[in-house]
Amino acid sequence: MRRVSNCIFCAIVRGDAAAARVYEDDDLLAFLDIRPVTRGHTLVIAKPHAERLDDLAADVGSRMFALGHRIALALGRSDLAADGSNLVLNDGPAAFQTVPHIHLHVIPRHHGDRLRFVKGLLLRRGGETDTTAALIRDGLTRMEQP
Amino acid sequence: MRRVSNCIFCAIVRGDAAAARVYEDDDLLAFLDIRPVTRGHTLVIAKPHAERLDDLAADVGSRMFALGHRIALALGRSDLAADGSNLVLNDGPAAFQTVPHIHLHVIPRHHGDRLRFVKGLLLRRGGETDTTAALIRDGLTRMEQP
Repeated sequence: MRRVSNCIFCAIVRGDAAAARVYEDDDLLAFLDIRPVTRGHTLVIAKPHAERLDDLAADVGSRMFALGHRIALALGRSDLAADGSNLVLNDGPAAFQTVPHIHLHVIPRHHGDRLRFVKGLLLRRGGETDTTAALIRDGLTRMEQP
Repeated sequence: MRRVSNCIFCAIVRGDAAAARVYEDDDLLAFLDIRPVTRGHTLVIAKPHAERLDDLAADVGSRMFALGHRIALALGRSDLAADGSNLVLNDGPAAFQTVPHIHLHVIPRHHGDRLRFVKGLLLRRGGETDTTAALIRDGLTRMEQP
């Protein structure tokens, strides 16, 4: 699997950098953004290093987005009780991509949080905890139940 | 296939409302946003009516996102010559979803267009043409070539 030594997301994949993990399998990893726009803001990545959409195999991209879809639903079923979410992928520096390992943002939203959302976008303050990740994992587990 | 009579996107699927089509198959449709944030701003939908991510079958969602991935690459290969793109899906009114038929925005970006992008977001003016759709279709065709 291609990994890049100075890539912070590859370091998280290797376990060399800390992250509050939400989901993991052989190919994909989801973890909390350390500067969340809203509480529960999750990033989904493919483990092999791919900088841009152009570097991402179509089938891997498809599974990455499918996991984003699933996490968005889990946010609504979790005790975070999201009313909706924004799924955002910024491909390239021209499109605000900052970490050069392509990633999908899943940002939980609540009715009436527009001002808080804009404030979160501008400030991007730290503060995510393992507690939040556990809530989202609970949401994913609830999706598996009938 | 479920269609909803008062849904503008279902009307486009039926052919009862006009749209500059970028791509179409049995399950999916991509067409230009009539109020583009930037030139080439494309919407990807699944043809069967699904209001929210919660109403969208996982496999259909997966194909919808895969088409978004493909269109993002086509925008770079087309004569629109995008340097990158934003893929955005707003799930629910709390997350700025305005048309209640779930859709993925693919917004082409160019280096240095940040102010134009913000202006486009705020104004969302009309002006997309069949010429633009043809350029993106050309980009998709170029992707099929070796």
